[in-house]
Amino acid sequence: MQRIYFDNAATTALDPKVLEEMLPFLTEKFGNPSSIYSYGRESKMGIESARKTVAKILHTKPGNIFFTSGGTESSNTAIRAAIRDLGCNHIITSPIEHHATLHCAEYWEHQGIKVSYVTILPTGHVDLDSLRNLLASHTDGKTLVTLMHANNEIGNLLPIQEVGEICKEHDAVFHCDTVQTVGHYPIDLSQINVHFATGAGHKFHGPKGVGILYISDEVSIKPMINGGGQERNMRAGTENLYGIVGFAKALQMATETYEQDSTYIRSLKRYMAEQLQQQLGDVSFNGDWDGQSLYTVLNASFPKTEKSEMLLMSLDMAGICVSGGSACSSGASVGSHVINCIDPGSDRVPVRFSFCKHNTTAEIDTVIEKLKEIL
Amino acid sequence: MQRIYFDNAATTALDPKVLEEMLPFLTEKFGNPSSIYSYGRESKMGIESARKTVAKILHTKPGNIFFTSGGTESSNTAIRAAIRDLGCNHIITSPIEHHATLHCAEYWEHQGIKVSYVTILPTGHVDLDSLRNLLASHTDGKTLVTLMHANNEIGNLLPIQEVGEICKEHDAVFHCDTVQTVGHYPIDLSQINVHFATGAGHKFHGPKGVGILYISDEVSIKPMINGGGQERNMRAGTENLYGIVGFAKALQMATETYEQDSTYIRSLKRYMAEQLQQQLGDVSFNGDWDGQSLYTVLNASFPKTEKSEMLLMSLDMAGICVSGGSACSSGASVGSHVINCIDPGSDRVPVRFSFCKHNTTAEIDTVIEKLKEIL
Repeated sequence: MQRIYFDNAATTALDPKVLEEMLPFLTEKFGNPSSIYSYGRESKMGIESARKTVAKILHTKPGNIFFTSGGTESSNTAIRAAIRDLGCNHIITSPIEHHATLHCAEYWEHQGIKVSYVTILPTGHVDLDSLRNLLASHTDGKTLVTLMHANNEIGNLLPIQEVGEICKEHDAVFHCDTVQTVGHYPIDLSQINVHFATGAGHKFHGPKGVGILYISDEVSIKPMINGGGQERNMRAGTENLYGIVGFAKALQMATETYEQDSTYIRSLKRYMAEQLQQQLGDVSFNGDWDGQSLYTVLNASFPKTEKSEMLLMSLDMAGICVSGGSACSSGASVGSHVINCIDPGSDRVPVRFSFCKHNTTAEIDTVIEKLKEIL
Repeated sequence: MQRIYFDNAATTALDPKVLEEMLPFLTEKFGNPSSIYSYGRESKMGIESARKTVAKILHTKPGNIFFTSGGTESSNTAIRAAIRDLGCNHIITSPIEHHATLHCAEYWEHQGIKVSYVTILPTGHVDLDSLRNLLASHTDGKTLVTLMHANNEIGNLLPIQEVGEICKEHDAVFHCDTVQTVGHYPIDLSQINVHFATGAGHKFHGPKGVGILYISDEVSIKPMINGGGQERNMRAGTENLYGIVGFAKALQMATETYEQDSTYIRSLKRYMAEQLQQQLGDVSFNGDWDGQSLYTVLNASFPKTEKSEMLLMSLDMAGICVSGGSACSSGASVGSHVINCIDPGSDRVPVRFSFCKHNTTAEIDTVIEKLKEIL
């Protein structure tokens, strides 16, 4: 059975060229990057060259890029640092953030930090007036604003530039979970007032287990993980050498073909939406899907029936990989917190289709046929 | 130039068979382990099968093994949890721990936690009477004892069983940094009173960027990294799938050939010591090198001369990789904190030779010749 993989927001296939770049470091170049002899120095060079590549693409300095074990660790580090090192006593976030942010906010709330949630509009967008009001109403300390650049379930894009300006006006620290956009959009960190941004290699055909944390020059923080002097004393532990090298290669490749890839993937998303509307009858889409939205994600919604409730399983049996929401929370018995927020009380069944450059309209045709069969 | 790698305590070469085991997960089996469809389930199975393998080898249950990004993260998690979740208000550690432990202890000391250091005997061993006294003298709360199983610089082995019993008598939490012994010694966690133990794949021919944290059933803790429900809600973030699979394979391979490998590597260490003594004149060894010591590590000490001060660099130029101490702190301008502790005020030059099964006596002969040339 041919597998159709429409869950690229969960993870993507490692590009063979990225693996090729990683392989020397998985074989002969195994030295510890902290060792001072040549064997270690060539590993260190691999890491520092990766850092330069990443920094250049994101329009920042190598000194502002720190390698971590992934997006979740990066967000945990940023949120913790904003509170412990930058003195924030108030977190503003949204109810539709990734759990890496939400569960951190809940953790800090238990530690006595005030947490406020911006209003989410029915389109799935953050109500910027609500953000402004929350910022203005907190007058006894510094605020951390943590909002994601693109929602991983519905695809909605945050006006990151504008949110950065709002944060600046209120002297707030701004952490942006950019895990769904790094490697998918040109991001110019020199033009955005953001203090912390994150990335995860496996979202753009790079390796799992590696991510970045961007830390702006405007803030000075302490590490979350203490130990050796790796990452200029900001993240202890022997580096995931091949992961780091792979991260940079994948980001470089994504950047080189960004124009054509994004155009192509956007056309797949449009085609899928059209086909669903034309052929599936009662289908709607969650979020601002044809507006300010990731070109990679289409979150469709089907009426609840006995058959639609089994939809993910039926599609799986047909070799089609899609998800009900975030993979990170797919073990949970409750529905998606994102869909529950933008469409409260709805009993419709959400299905997230997320595409990459390897997908085709032929695959979409197959999925549409299968959906018609099932529903 | 043929490279001679005598720095296996810093990191080891990835075994080609381990890489072979990882490759399917670096290519076609790329699904997100949290996804519920078949593609995700096969990734999940890779992880759970790895967990079973590791648990069986360490004589514990899969439910007690958690995968992390490495030994440093594991130790940070354990120490943090002992304080935040288990109510310890006192840390007992030693001045010759790895920085992953020492810098954590310093961090918590800044947070108001009392930190005590056991006395280290001139042999480099922990003075167990000092440990008992420190435990007995802390009467207003629970103590965390964090001591490493084997010292990464001088190789000294802790009587882990006995320390576990002492901790039990005093109702203390025991965290043991077992990074240098997991994959090198048969460890039976069911027989040791230890609450937290750690491991790092790259120390026994497995991959970098992956480690384990063993958490005993006797303690219940919260995660350090919040987010998705990975690792049964104990460590959020998309799993380093290939790393985890590689960790288990490397541990399995190390266990299968443990008897012959340890016998062989021990003979290399003895041969090196003999040759150094016979051919280098004024050489001594740090720690209990021919007693309770890692069979992989020999820490030699040479008189300070203009030439010996350049020894590491001269050896590097001859293609010989050895270190002055821990790789993790090799960037530091001060000498080794371990050597400074056991041989205070000494101006001798320490060199750590650490071996693996791929090394040979012929390599040792070459290194001895080179040392004679240089010194």
